[in-house]
Amino acid sequence: MSGERYVVGVDFGTLSGRAVLVRVSDGAEVGAVTYEYPHGVIDRKLPTDNSNKNDRAGGGGSGGAGGGDGDGRELPPDWALQVPSDYIGVLKHAIPELITATKIDPADVIGIGTDFTASTDIPVLADGTPLCELPEYGNRPHAYAKLWKHHAAQPHADRINALARDRGEPWLGRYGGLISSEWEFAKGLQLLEEDPEAYHRMDRFAEAADWIIWQLTGNYVRNACTAGYKGIYQDGRYPDRDFLTTLNPDFGDFAGTKLKGTIASLGDKAGTLTERAARWTGLEPGIAVATGNVDAHVTAPAAQAVGPGQLLAIMGTSTCHVMSAPTLAEVPGMCGVVDGGIVAGLYGYEAGQSGVGDIFAWFADNFVPPNYHHDAERIGLTLHDHLTALAAAQPVGGHGLVALDWESGNRSVLVDHALSGVIVGMTLATRPEEVYRALIEATAFGTRKIVETFTASGIDVTEFVAAGGLLRNEFLMQVYADVLRMPVATCASEQAPALGSAIHAAVAAGAYPDVKTAGAAMGGRGDRVYQPDPAAADVYDRLYAEYETLHDYFGRAGKNGGENSGNDAMHRLNALRREALS
Amino acid sequence: MSGERYVVGVDFGTLSGRAVLVRVSDGAEVGAVTYEYPHGVIDRKLPTDNSNKNDRAGGGGSGGAGGGDGDGRELPPDWALQVPSDYIGVLKHAIPELITATKIDPADVIGIGTDFTASTDIPVLADGTPLCELPEYGNRPHAYAKLWKHHAAQPHADRINALARDRGEPWLGRYGGLISSEWEFAKGLQLLEEDPEAYHRMDRFAEAADWIIWQLTGNYVRNACTAGYKGIYQDGRYPDRDFLTTLNPDFGDFAGTKLKGTIASLGDKAGTLTERAARWTGLEPGIAVATGNVDAHVTAPAAQAVGPGQLLAIMGTSTCHVMSAPTLAEVPGMCGVVDGGIVAGLYGYEAGQSGVGDIFAWFADNFVPPNYHHDAERIGLTLHDHLTALAAAQPVGGHGLVALDWESGNRSVLVDHALSGVIVGMTLATRPEEVYRALIEATAFGTRKIVETFTASGIDVTEFVAAGGLLRNEFLMQVYADVLRMPVATCASEQAPALGSAIHAAVAAGAYPDVKTAGAAMGGRGDRVYQPDPAAADVYDRLYAEYETLHDYFGRAGKNGGENSGNDAMHRLNALRREALS
Repeated sequence: MSGERYVVGVDFGTLSGRAVLVRVSDGAEVGAVTYEYPHGVIDRKLPTDNSNKNDRAGGGGSGGAGGGDGDGRELPPDWALQVPSDYIGVLKHAIPELITATKIDPADVIGIGTDFTASTDIPVLADGTPLCELPEYGNRPHAYAKLWKHHAAQPHADRINALARDRGEPWLGRYGGLISSEWEFAKGLQLLEEDPEAYHRMDRFAEAADWIIWQLTGNYVRNACTAGYKGIYQDGRYPDRDFLTTLNPDFGDFAGTKLKGTIASLGDKAGTLTERAARWTGLEPGIAVATGNVDAHVTAPAAQAVGPGQLLAIMGTSTCHVMSAPTLAEVPGMCGVVDGGIVAGLYGYEAGQSGVGDIFAWFADNFVPPNYHHDAERIGLTLHDHLTALAAAQPVGGHGLVALDWESGNRSVLVDHALSGVIVGMTLATRPEEVYRALIEATAFGTRKIVETFTASGIDVTEFVAAGGLLRNEFLMQVYADVLRMPVATCASEQAPALGSAIHAAVAAGAYPDVKTAGAAMGGRGDRVYQPDPAAADVYDRLYAEYETLHDYFGRAGKNGGENSGNDAMHRLNALRREALS
Repeated sequence: MSGERYVVGVDFGTLSGRAVLVRVSDGAEVGAVTYEYPHGVIDRKLPTDNSNKNDRAGGGGSGGAGGGDGDGRELPPDWALQVPSDYIGVLKHAIPELITATKIDPADVIGIGTDFTASTDIPVLADGTPLCELPEYGNRPHAYAKLWKHHAAQPHADRINALARDRGEPWLGRYGGLISSEWEFAKGLQLLEEDPEAYHRMDRFAEAADWIIWQLTGNYVRNACTAGYKGIYQDGRYPDRDFLTTLNPDFGDFAGTKLKGTIASLGDKAGTLTERAARWTGLEPGIAVATGNVDAHVTAPAAQAVGPGQLLAIMGTSTCHVMSAPTLAEVPGMCGVVDGGIVAGLYGYEAGQSGVGDIFAWFADNFVPPNYHHDAERIGLTLHDHLTALAAAQPVGGHGLVALDWESGNRSVLVDHALSGVIVGMTLATRPEEVYRALIEATAFGTRKIVETFTASGIDVTEFVAAGGLLRNEFLMQVYADVLRMPVATCASEQAPALGSAIHAAVAAGAYPDVKTAGAAMGGRGDRVYQPDPAAADVYDRLYAEYETLHDYFGRAGKNGGENSGNDAMHRLNALRREALS
């Protein structure tokens, strides 16, 4: 037809996968289709039936005759599993629908790229079949995919951290001093110790980001991003056998066998689409498939934020901050620094705030009275928009409040999920929109704390770019600009991760020489840049000073300068709560 | 008829007056009638007309021909006025209705007693006529009664406190180190400096508690309670002329002239009912009228809590604590200690919490979502009862929260109305009933802090007795018992202040030799005594330890041990708020 070429980007999220079709020449998003995972997040009971047997990956694509279904047994607290066949469902349903809806000739699609939640880990056989698809493993929780937010491996993470500190492991500093319970090693150690048979039966403990590429290409290729951020792969190696054996004598081979695989750079071609995957997707066999990637990191080129000092904040229920820099530094309390972790050739830094949109939703769902709901409905606004409009009408500092944004713990820079929320300054005149505003401001202060920590560690932040669902809230964006005293640029795409995956597909297909060049052509910035208001910024400086004082008082108790340096109330309250509820 | 005798007690509150008819022999409450003040609280504009001209006290009872009405002019912030004729309305309407409704022969009523909000102050002529009833004064805000919660004299109170500290005035310690802006001297100084003509025109600056007695008897008799707690009358004298002249050269005569009057003990007969007041009330002229009193203090005999160490808490929108003791001590941060301030012969101690029921109402009104309202309605409970039931179902400490009860400032022991509320420990799982419970607990912790401060000052609290509207909340009462580790006894009467006034009337009429004896016969305890649960008390001890840490951190910043001893955030946030809103 026009000679235009296209790529498909697929963003595998927590509850659904979203496929977009993107024009290679300019990144125009031609269409998008979302597919909800039939099993969603499994956090209470194993599934008793598996309605999408035809989507199974194992058994040579035969459609999975027989078992694999669970018996509905209950899961312990803090578990979160998924069914890998749900991911195949995205390939089988969303992509063909996308082709049909956009009426694009599949022959014009030259590549496919993907991004995934991480670390989401699947125990698989040597051919990629998930253990949970084996008839004899359907009732075993450890045979399923452990979703990123499976937090039941916290005791294992604690042991990894304690031992790494004791031994002075050099990689620990790359993760701000703490390995997360969400990552590969903690989840793998839990699997070994709680279901050794399943552990020994599995050939690989695959990141879902890489497993999906395996399904598309037949090649098992690990991506540098998850290997580095989630797999403790630093300076060309994993933690050594001696360290692992000390954790558990049977864990010594974990890195050497269960994580074994070629590691490819982001934007590399992992392989070509197999005949089987071509049948699933309706795309042509043999087209390029990009190496896997992670939702936050893949977004950087879509937002044209891959250069040194360009901090990209993907702001939604939580916020993930990613930034590249030419130099290696250990930044306190960061999620990690990985060589080529965002784009090849630069060190990729990651930080995050555990709760952002989640906190606003929690407040709006639980602490807003009926008259606000009625007024919002009458005016024709969502409750959030109504609260935002009321909050925006207040002068800065007019609420007399300061809050800490830790209702979901703190991921950076304190790295402490037992921390909790605080609000100071309420009077009988305090109204919901004032607390709502204080919570918005608190998340902006949390971001400023991360930016200042980067800068203090020698990693300059020269530009702030925002992406994600919270972009819609213009008042919030202005608060961030004022609090940061920096212009806040915006990403043009509303489905930036999927666009980022498409950009990686274009690179893998050879349409562009590298991710940065592809991002310059296909990514884009929104017209709106929020400029800081100096007068507002002056007032926010005063509120931020209060935030900082509370941050250290509650967040660093006993950590700086001895017993009297703060108040460890949050840990005591958390412990008391667990004790009372047990 | 039966030979039974009766007394009338009248409780003059903030918005209405409540008259009860009580049997002298046993305190049985035969009937009650409430009369709402037509003008309520005047805090925005002066009244433009005065619908109850016939209730005017001045002009020899002529009915107040002519002026006195205001022109609707706006009041500055923090003002709170009342119209004294509204008080006369209670005498003219509630008491006759009470007599009619109960069908008691007025000849069987032997006395009347009253209690009032305090300090509520009325500028009057030598015959008791309020200045606001003079035609030429109807438009002058300072000619009206200044209600207890008129807070516009704070700058004047600040000057009184600063000067008293500088001069080492011996009376300052009797008030915990601070004279309130609500009291006579601050309000009088404001009147002098803002409307000197009105100040010089008035002959007396009368406590409403005494003014109403003047209206009933024709005698101006000051009561020992307000003279001591609100009038700085200690050891037989007011602050001296030199002190007052230093405040303002024209203020030197304030105590000597404007406050001049005989001071009578509580329970003394102030005089007998005049012919005019008999016509107003439908009672017989010549019956005994008790000396005036204050709502909280008058309640002690109704609750049989007049002995040493019996702490009575009148728990409603705020809580007032009164207790008698044989010895004089200066208790830090107390509202005051007055010889005979509750019953003659003992030192009366007063403390208080500015916000209690107010805080629960604030939360329920502003921070409870629609589904809770719907559920409450469906179950047939009030919202408060629904929240209470949900809160009561939680284990102690299960919410993981601790709060400070300072949404309305702190009246004891920090005496700082710029303090504000704090909640620590919120997570995304925190629900409204958990915050509601944390607020209830916070007020109990505030009470424990007061009890512990009394004890630490050598004034032992041997029994805790509760009265007031919050008695209805059994869960709350149990929390108080657990937190205090003391049995919490209850007052039987639901209109305890009015019953207390009736008890004082019976003493004034000679039916009993003293208030204590009358209280033993006419007052009463409820059947319910809340016993502390030791297991719950152990957990509350841990939460109270957190409360104490936050109490001192936010409440005593810079006051104990230098700059680094706490966090003065609340004052800074309060100042910022005023600045932002101005």
